[in-house]
Amino acid sequence: MSETKIERGELRYEGKAKRVYATATPTEYIVEYKDDATAFNGVKKAQIGGKGAINNAITAAIYPLLEAAGIPTHFISKLSDTEQLVKAVTIVPVEVIVRNVAAGSFSKRLDIAEGTPLSRPVVEYCYKSDALGDPLINTDTAVSLGWATEDDLKRIRELALQVRDFLTPFFLARGIRLIDFKLEFGKLSSGEIVLADEISPDTCRFWDAQTNEKMDKDRFRRDLGGVEDAYAEMLRRVTQGAANQSEN
Amino acid sequence: MSETKIERGELRYEGKAKRVYATATPTEYIVEYKDDATAFNGVKKAQIGGKGAINNAITAAIYPLLEAAGIPTHFISKLSDTEQLVKAVTIVPVEVIVRNVAAGSFSKRLDIAEGTPLSRPVVEYCYKSDALGDPLINTDTAVSLGWATEDDLKRIRELALQVRDFLTPFFLARGIRLIDFKLEFGKLSSGEIVLADEISPDTCRFWDAQTNEKMDKDRFRRDLGGVEDAYAEMLRRVTQGAANQSEN
Repeated sequence: MSETKIERGELRYEGKAKRVYATATPTEYIVEYKDDATAFNGVKKAQIGGKGAINNAITAAIYPLLEAAGIPTHFISKLSDTEQLVKAVTIVPVEVIVRNVAAGSFSKRLDIAEGTPLSRPVVEYCYKSDALGDPLINTDTAVSLGWATEDDLKRIRELALQVRDFLTPFFLARGIRLIDFKLEFGKLSSGEIVLADEISPDTCRFWDAQTNEKMDKDRFRRDLGGVEDAYAEMLRRVTQGAANQSEN
Repeated sequence: MSETKIERGELRYEGKAKRVYATATPTEYIVEYKDDATAFNGVKKAQIGGKGAINNAITAAIYPLLEAAGIPTHFISKLSDTEQLVKAVTIVPVEVIVRNVAAGSFSKRLDIAEGTPLSRPVVEYCYKSDALGDPLINTDTAVSLGWATEDDLKRIRELALQVRDFLTPFFLARGIRLIDFKLEFGKLSSGEIVLADEISPDTCRFWDAQTNEKMDKDRFRRDLGGVEDAYAEMLRRVTQGAANQSEN
């Protein structure tokens, strides 16, 4: 968590929850986490107080652990409450959703009750396009339309399942069921695929392991209240370490 | 095209375009092709005069050719204008769409102009469920929810691409661009996967190779007129043989 003085350069990208800036070093970017929250492809908008700092802190805590587990990521260091330094990547425009338990769009599309465990993890792919609402695709489509190569997608799937295998027990040890999560990957100039983006209550479904209470952005999407408290509690559980070692 | 006297037994299944009957032989079913046409998941309904007979004839002409090319199918013989004898199968509830060229739901979902050639064939999977509107899925989902095994899906993909490799030049030699098509597969009691269902203007997009005129169910879906004529012309081209051997 070293606080380094690195100056923001040109704004390179602004998404719904983050801004990406160039730095004086061409291979490094600054990511700034915003408090802005959107849902339903931007139809619902609000600010969640402290969200940017919490998601920055959670991601900054988790990505080094993933690196240590052998999963390459874009993360370099935390720069400030809401900023982190990352490796410059070209984002692969294929979002990856990994599901342990049916929920959200999966439950709705297939009429499977939320909370139904899946007999094995399901990896889904969406085309990263706000204009189209991030439509579901498959790897054939991504390759055919030039969004990624077959080798890239094989590596992405492998890494996504490694992330799942690391995070599922990690969160369970902290009293959280990891229901599903969304990942984005980037390509370094070397061609190496690395995990990019963030892992936070914005991009994961977290259910309390005892009560099944939602501890993630669904509290905002579904007007459940207590959004800030849930985000803060997730940060507390991630950073406090594994108080509860039950891994069942 | 032998006309055999085999009696219909109990109605086993009625779909939007076909009825399936038991026979006195437990391993054989009769499929009856109906003139009923539906679109947009049954919202639009009509009769297309002669459609049942045409689709039965086209399927009865093509399936033996696929068998000869090494693709196992459920087809045994044509029984009458609108009936065929098939092997009894359990249908795998995963519809397979193979796309050579962007069109239909693919074009709409991804905002890719209809008629855009795909750099390689795209195989999509949908869950066969009228109630849910045959939602797009992937193979992880089908395995996780018990709709098919991983081995079955590998075989289905392999067969679907073999069907595509056979049919694309077959139709081009008859002046037709095969844009995309939907297949269904079934499982024999032995466990063998075979091509089931039909191949017809109801389940394929056929565009005239010279004019790009639509020669398929899109004439009905999109109120283009000339539906019966297009179906009859497709039967003529399939059964007349390859008048035009240009395969470019």
